Amino acid sequence: MAKGRFITLEGGEGVGKTTQLHALADALRGRGLEVVTTREPGGSEGAEAIRRLLLEGGEERWSAPAEALLFAAARTDHLDKLIRPALLAGKWVISDRFLDSSLAYQGGAGGLGIAEVRAINAFGIGDTFPDRTLLLLHPEGAERALARDGDQSDRIGGRPGSYHLAVEASFRAIAEAEPRRVHLVDAAGSPQEVTARLLAALEDLL
Amino acid sequence: MAKGRFITLEGGEGVGKTTQLHALADALRGRGLEVVTTREPGGSEGAEAIRRLLLEGGEERWSAPAEALLFAAARTDHLDKLIRPALLAGKWVISDRFLDSSLAYQGGAGGLGIAEVRAINAFGIGDTFPDRTLLLLHPEGAERALARDGDQSDRIGGRPGSYHLAVEASFRAIAEAEPRRVHLVDAAGSPQEVTARLLAALEDLL
Repeated sequence: MAKGRFITLEGGEGVGKTTQLHALADALRGRGLEVVTTREPGGSEGAEAIRRLLLEGGEERWSAPAEALLFAAARTDHLDKLIRPALLAGKWVISDRFLDSSLAYQGGAGGLGIAEVRAINAFGIGDTFPDRTLLLLHPEGAERALARDGDQSDRIGGRPGSYHLAVEASFRAIAEAEPRRVHLVDAAGSPQEVTARLLAALEDLL
Repeated sequence: MAKGRFITLEGGEGVGKTTQLHALADALRGRGLEVVTTREPGGSEGAEAIRRLLLEGGEERWSAPAEALLFAAARTDHLDKLIRPALLAGKWVISDRFLDSSLAYQGGAGGLGIAEVRAINAFGIGDTFPDRTLLLLHPEGAERALARDGDQSDRIGGRPGSYHLAVEASFRAIAEAEPRRVHLVDAAGSPQEVTARLLAALEDLL
């Protein structure tokens, strides 16, 4: 049986991750692969319950460290119940966000430290690391996110513009540290063009 | 303003921690101290919500690593919302269970590793470490727990007898590694005798 591959899509708000998740899955299915799409936070029953805990209440509901531990717990359940079983069954798994979102949002932009957030996540991830991470970068990503969300905050999505820029800088730093795993993909242009770039960045795994 | 002190009561099931929590708090109040009593898992609104997540569902609901991360997240909220504010206000805080229960149950008896579980907890605890941990040991503690709970399992309390023995061995190993913080207290005898021993083990902090 062919080995499943674990692919993650990362990037700030407004870069088109969700659209590309489905387009990429369809393109891979067109090549005869079995593909499971999922997203974080959430993706499994336990992780969705934790996601609801994270979303309820206001800004002061959880401290930044408590929030990061809840994200790590949700990710662990997502791996346990959905990602690892699918990979073991030979399927490809594509997740809209995974570890690097925690590193960039809570670790980098949130100030908890990328290494510290990586350590608590490593506890649950073990050796189920993504085979490839596709980091979507769009020159107007932060502006588009701000136009879409305003300055509202729901603890996951809407934040001020400076925060979006700090997130993007953190994503770039992670990619520089792990160039084999994390490939930068230009998210400008038509959706078809972007999907073609994503496929090209997976060519060596196909 | 006098500095608050953070005291934790630890031990396996059946050693009388809950009875002693209240007796010890009353004795300290008798010496003019303001005392807050609390317990884990739970102790704050967010931590109680996480506790409900941990208790719902069956044995397979959470993997051991996911469970340990949820306990660490709950503990972080407990510190943020109840323990640290009380200590800053000069109060004494006594908690029925804290970090060492995670180390002994999930880390030692559960097989995740004491150092590994300590690391994910250190992320949320920071420098709010207990000033003193009182480890209650009773020669028939494991047998009493087994008689009370049977072999039922609710993910926190009831477990087979061998598990209770592994927990006690883990608690003893933690105490040996940190003799200044963790004091062993004989839990045999009348409740009044045990309370007197607990007070004696706090004498240098009073």
